[in-house]
Amino acid sequence: MPGIPLGPFADDSAYAEAVARDGTDPLRQFRSEFAAQDPSLIYLDGNSLGRLPNRTVELIRDTVENQWGTRLNRSWRERWWTQADAIGSMIAPIVGAGGSDVIVADSTSVALFKLTVGALRARPDRGRILTDDLNFPTDLYVTSAAADLAGGREVVMVPSADGIAGPEDALLAALDDDTALLTLSHVAFKSGYLYDMERLTKAAHDVGALVLWDLSHSVGAVPIDLTAAGVDLAVGCTYKYLNGGPGSPAFLYVSRSLDIENPLSGWWGHTDPFAFDTEYEPAASIKRFQTGTMPIISMVAIEPGVTLTARAGMDAIRTKSVALSEFFVQLSDRLLEPLGFTVASPRDPEQRGSHVSMRHADGWRVSQVMIDHANLIPDFRPPDNIRFGFAPLYTSFLDVHTAVLRITELFAAGTMARYSSTRDTVS
Amino acid sequence: MPGIPLGPFADDSAYAEAVARDGTDPLRQFRSEFAAQDPSLIYLDGNSLGRLPNRTVELIRDTVENQWGTRLNRSWRERWWTQADAIGSMIAPIVGAGGSDVIVADSTSVALFKLTVGALRARPDRGRILTDDLNFPTDLYVTSAAADLAGGREVVMVPSADGIAGPEDALLAALDDDTALLTLSHVAFKSGYLYDMERLTKAAHDVGALVLWDLSHSVGAVPIDLTAAGVDLAVGCTYKYLNGGPGSPAFLYVSRSLDIENPLSGWWGHTDPFAFDTEYEPAASIKRFQTGTMPIISMVAIEPGVTLTARAGMDAIRTKSVALSEFFVQLSDRLLEPLGFTVASPRDPEQRGSHVSMRHADGWRVSQVMIDHANLIPDFRPPDNIRFGFAPLYTSFLDVHTAVLRITELFAAGTMARYSSTRDTVS
Repeated sequence: MPGIPLGPFADDSAYAEAVARDGTDPLRQFRSEFAAQDPSLIYLDGNSLGRLPNRTVELIRDTVENQWGTRLNRSWRERWWTQADAIGSMIAPIVGAGGSDVIVADSTSVALFKLTVGALRARPDRGRILTDDLNFPTDLYVTSAAADLAGGREVVMVPSADGIAGPEDALLAALDDDTALLTLSHVAFKSGYLYDMERLTKAAHDVGALVLWDLSHSVGAVPIDLTAAGVDLAVGCTYKYLNGGPGSPAFLYVSRSLDIENPLSGWWGHTDPFAFDTEYEPAASIKRFQTGTMPIISMVAIEPGVTLTARAGMDAIRTKSVALSEFFVQLSDRLLEPLGFTVASPRDPEQRGSHVSMRHADGWRVSQVMIDHANLIPDFRPPDNIRFGFAPLYTSFLDVHTAVLRITELFAAGTMARYSSTRDTVS
Repeated sequence: MPGIPLGPFADDSAYAEAVARDGTDPLRQFRSEFAAQDPSLIYLDGNSLGRLPNRTVELIRDTVENQWGTRLNRSWRERWWTQADAIGSMIAPIVGAGGSDVIVADSTSVALFKLTVGALRARPDRGRILTDDLNFPTDLYVTSAAADLAGGREVVMVPSADGIAGPEDALLAALDDDTALLTLSHVAFKSGYLYDMERLTKAAHDVGALVLWDLSHSVGAVPIDLTAAGVDLAVGCTYKYLNGGPGSPAFLYVSRSLDIENPLSGWWGHTDPFAFDTEYEPAASIKRFQTGTMPIISMVAIEPGVTLTARAGMDAIRTKSVALSEFFVQLSDRLLEPLGFTVASPRDPEQRGSHVSMRHADGWRVSQVMIDHANLIPDFRPPDNIRFGFAPLYTSFLDVHTAVLRITELFAAGTMARYSSTRDTVS
């Protein structure tokens, strides 16, 4: 990496700092656990799709060629049938849950639907579901769908003042004894705002409401303790910081203190699936939140990334995450702000997950030029947010430095302007 | 395969017939399209988990190592985002649907839920859902769940007289103007009974009901013409005769003449997912029946098996399927009936899918001894059904002959009795 030309905007002290930090990074050896990529690529989208762990390559090959190809249906008994529980149990300590309180099941959206309807049924006499406009859109769609199906409840979406900070005070003020459920993203997908899970959960409980947290943008990046926070329900994504692969199934958590049923009852949640009873009898365990047959190849691929995360430890991951994003913000203030970028994430790292959004008036085009002409991959969220994700298992401080450097180079001497017509539509 | 020892119960004329039929089988070259397996294994469970197409090995490797590992999130645009539609379009002609009327989405159970709730909402004033007790259990569980959620409808489960034949006449008699939906498996999972799709669909329409067919045990084995039959809604499984791999996602079909919405609205079904609107606006196309992010590796694996099926053609597949199962029934009548087996599938091949169930008083143990000591894989469905599935793309007539031969050998001279304690619980 020191061989990359630094260009006219190189900042030697920052470069030296990046190299020094990488040299003392306690997680530095984890980068080699991921499949080799184009060495000049700077990948800052692990907040959307995590990288491929080396071990996943061999695991999938074995699953396909040996378990499916050779063992065929015998693999259900030998391995596959228990994987949703087994991987759930491995995710559990990463989110502060008991080992038998987490299971892998369906997509995040479908998991949200199950838990939302389940929660509403557990609060039959309450009419409101509280959320906010920083929540991921699918959460809002699913919440509305669940509200309609579970008897015409009203979804109240509290607005954020600036699109950056979660409206925590307004949410607290809106909680009342007609609130059935408070449902939020733990880290906001666009701004990266990190909610105070414990405070909001306690406030919801104080009015008798249940709480459902979507951990998609925090799991594997931010320490989470569902047990200590007294959380009722949670879902999360496995393909971002957990590196489970494109569209790998979600996980869900249900507090053991709750008596909530799965409204989407299917044979995988039956207490004795292979009895093939015509009557549904839910499993007593978290397995009751499964529905149909899980996509095995995509599911088994979750495990290596979870194992790496557990091995690194969430405290070390968080420490490095904060250091990476702080380094980025420092460099941005000095080098990117003059180019029209503004930080659209909380400036306080205590209120931020592991990605930083940067607004730019020409954000869509600028992000595409980064990808096509600087071999730098962030992602874009409309109307004007370029998200830079820092995945502590494989993002280096030098990656951060190089990313900022390349952006400055794109703007230098009219380079960005030359590519103005490269892409002009979202596809 | 002629090298397999024939043993004392060999039937030379049947053996010669098997060899001759394989020699003139127009689909015989398809067997080599599947990954090599233990050459002495007789796999008769393609009705549950189809075999691994050779091309799938390379396709998954490319998806993992190149598309995920190297191209990373760029693969969404380059390939992944359109796969659910693209593979749906390839499945469409196999089920007699328009190319844009089928999409890959979630598990069969979740797909059933979406279409069932959607159908009930389209018939808001009708109180009954009609099905029968040969339907797959998850279909019954999901139907009940959907009935509860969509406003307390009643599920009427018509019993089969003998557990073999679908109670078609009783279903017709039960249809009335309070029936919102008739929902059935096209081929019954246990007995293999093949329903008269056109007759039942027409009768349901005559009383103003909608029809939902579960094609899981027929797609890729039986010719289906959803358009000609005027079917409203259908779901199907891709990992049985379509050879999509363990738990590969389901597909669903919605007639273009119907104005039905997806009750499980998620961001993948939004008309403009990457606008990240807080309001849900469903896609006009079949894409609106998607919900969350699909498990890409398990999903792309569907394509090679579908391509093989399309190349073979459903008429040739059906012709061979009937010939294989008829050959099995003939041999069974002569060689297995004396051992306590009775055919528990329709004897008329016109009323049968591509698997044959055999009842045996000691069925569970017998099936396990077949697997453990005869390298012969059927599957078991309680209380006493051993299912033998014939997948025309790779099952040979000699497979059928060898299977029956091995069973007779297991019973000869007390062999089966010796293994009586091998397995005694369902796991």
